[in-house]
Amino acid sequence: MNAEIIVVGSELLTPFRQDTNSLYLTEKLNQLGVDVRRKTIVADDQKQIAELTRVALSRSDILIFSGGLGPTEDDLTREGVAEALQLELQRDPEMLAAFEVRAAARGWKMTANNHKQADVIAGAIVLANSNGTAPGQWITRKHDGRERILLLLPGPPHELKAIFEEQCMARLRTVLPTQFIVTRVLKITGIGESQCDARVAPIYKGYTDVQTTILAGAGEVQLHLKTHADSIDAAQKRVDKLVEEIENELGDLVFSDTGESLEQIVNYYLQMRNVSLAVAESCTGGLVAERLTSISGSSRYFLGGAVVYSNELKTRFADVPAEMIEKHGAVSEEVARALAEGIRKRCGASFGMGITGIAGPTGGSAEKPVGLVFHALASEAGVEVVRKIFPGDRKHIRWFASQTALDMVRRKLM
Amino acid sequence: MNAEIIVVGSELLTPFRQDTNSLYLTEKLNQLGVDVRRKTIVADDQKQIAELTRVALSRSDILIFSGGLGPTEDDLTREGVAEALQLELQRDPEMLAAFEVRAAARGWKMTANNHKQADVIAGAIVLANSNGTAPGQWITRKHDGRERILLLLPGPPHELKAIFEEQCMARLRTVLPTQFIVTRVLKITGIGESQCDARVAPIYKGYTDVQTTILAGAGEVQLHLKTHADSIDAAQKRVDKLVEEIENELGDLVFSDTGESLEQIVNYYLQMRNVSLAVAESCTGGLVAERLTSISGSSRYFLGGAVVYSNELKTRFADVPAEMIEKHGAVSEEVARALAEGIRKRCGASFGMGITGIAGPTGGSAEKPVGLVFHALASEAGVEVVRKIFPGDRKHIRWFASQTALDMVRRKLM
Repeated sequence: MNAEIIVVGSELLTPFRQDTNSLYLTEKLNQLGVDVRRKTIVADDQKQIAELTRVALSRSDILIFSGGLGPTEDDLTREGVAEALQLELQRDPEMLAAFEVRAAARGWKMTANNHKQADVIAGAIVLANSNGTAPGQWITRKHDGRERILLLLPGPPHELKAIFEEQCMARLRTVLPTQFIVTRVLKITGIGESQCDARVAPIYKGYTDVQTTILAGAGEVQLHLKTHADSIDAAQKRVDKLVEEIENELGDLVFSDTGESLEQIVNYYLQMRNVSLAVAESCTGGLVAERLTSISGSSRYFLGGAVVYSNELKTRFADVPAEMIEKHGAVSEEVARALAEGIRKRCGASFGMGITGIAGPTGGSAEKPVGLVFHALASEAGVEVVRKIFPGDRKHIRWFASQTALDMVRRKLM
Repeated sequence: MNAEIIVVGSELLTPFRQDTNSLYLTEKLNQLGVDVRRKTIVADDQKQIAELTRVALSRSDILIFSGGLGPTEDDLTREGVAEALQLELQRDPEMLAAFEVRAAARGWKMTANNHKQADVIAGAIVLANSNGTAPGQWITRKHDGRERILLLLPGPPHELKAIFEEQCMARLRTVLPTQFIVTRVLKITGIGESQCDARVAPIYKGYTDVQTTILAGAGEVQLHLKTHADSIDAAQKRVDKLVEEIENELGDLVFSDTGESLEQIVNYYLQMRNVSLAVAESCTGGLVAERLTSISGSSRYFLGGAVVYSNELKTRFADVPAEMIEKHGAVSEEVARALAEGIRKRCGASFGMGITGIAGPTGGSAEKPVGLVFHALASEAGVEVVRKIFPGDRKHIRWFASQTALDMVRRKLM
């Protein structure tokens, strides 16, 4: 079974807006064992919507429309699909009455435009919208002897998601062949994409029944594994076995096999070991702290720290001797060590992290190029330092540095 | 003139990857006066690519393909387009030789697969790829008596952008009707989208020749203005006049009329006034510092500061009296004031910013709900405080708070 997603909206053909509903829909459809074979973004134009619907019906089992169900003149999905199917639009009097009640309760006045949202394609099942006005519509249609499903959903993501989750998933399950899909995500840091693939490809290639996708970002590689089988147990066992083999190969390069971010993992370890952390950041300018505190509950073991962008603050907040900065430069192993030790003591933390480097684009030299970063992790037992030269622009370098710093903490606590 | 963008790649039909090239291409095409009428994401499938090319040729003047030009078996854009146009693919011997030289220089071995990237559609202009191997291709074709342009570009964004910028923009200008497009972006903070629109709609509705788009994010509204005219001067004057009228209406709610981010504007003001800033962040956890230091050169006037997530650090780094925290709570106007004053003195900065609040989802109460944030800005002249209750989740609340804090600094320095 395959599906096609049709996103309706002229604003999604400007440089400013991008469809995201299709990512959500794809994830859900994949869970049901349905592949997405095409996505189209089409303007608010009845003729174009109708023409696209006719073509899509000839090639795809499920057509999902996102958007174009609102009250304005530009909202033409209902009209376009009805035209393609040569069906009438019927104004639903009960729905209209419900709109009136709802509007009255909020002190709004229903305009004539709003009535349009009660137009239902003849024979459609109405999917009530708990987060908005325009309902979704579910239409079945025989085409070339095969059953097709057309699903009209509103564009606002929270409306679309609620309707799909509550009213479409279960309904789709009853019409789709029974199959069980299991997915797992492995997250890896400390190795590049091609190196990683060279090590794991010989393993996953032995699992032709598991679909493996490798994705890479700054300082992180992800392996997405997916399989389907006749029972949930059989599918789960298959994926778990592959995960085990990959983890045996990659060892502690894998930081998560259940989808967490690196900051979540670090927060988890800090909590588990009942230890605290403080950071003194120069080139990352608060990014490590920001990532750690993005996790709710992090205040229990992440104490905080200092953004010591100026040399004076390195001394004032982390007790780095001014002479040391003078002698070795602010970007040096010595200063990184002193930052880590200094912030640890100042904050009374179990661990102290110090980061200093050159994020660029200016400030580099032959000896100390843009991208050079020293990361130091101090504990009672001593200080460890990792020196790296990261590629990319300012944003990339800062992200890489934060990733490396968090990974040092993870490895220490593992 | 209109264009259609065809994005080729099965990975873009998974939940994990999203096309972004089309946003860049749309922006550039709009600058040339070309509208994008449709975007399609199609799988790595020669038959589907060919069929889509045939249909698109019948309705659009310019077809831009992104992706599918690499060396693997899955890269089939060349083959699909050649099939649709019923043209031959010809392997370019000079290009092949250049690939060999390049590979040898890097110590790589060319594989047979790589040769494929030298396949050129008969009659195409080759667009050299300075950032990668696969070149772009420019094909012209008469269809129903009208000239069509087909542009094949590689998928990696930095390769696509370089080729489009350097080799396609000027070439497109020569074939497109002369028109001059001018755009401007106004960025606004401190007012919601609907309130903003209510105030400016009566103005921009008087400019039917200027296309106005209103966009809203967390703590920021953007107005995108675009017009075209027979001369660049005429277009510029028209947009500038509208900008002036809107700025008269909105006053200092507009923080930028040339596209800068709020952190860029704050950095700019700090530099212009030759003053320095330090921040003590609790609930934003380093976000304000991270945003300010994301701007290259910010180290000259942003000194740094402290992430005082724990109460103890509020005292240790910003001299907030422990009794004050005890008495009023960490989230209080008093503590925000003390943070701002404390960090200013500690860092020897002209201005000190203190932020304390409840980012949620836990930690709220009836008296102090999730979303409550106090922002304080201290200078020699005294301390100002802004109290807000922000809607949304943890991420939204933190972003709103950082936006409010940065805006306080902007207003102070304006």
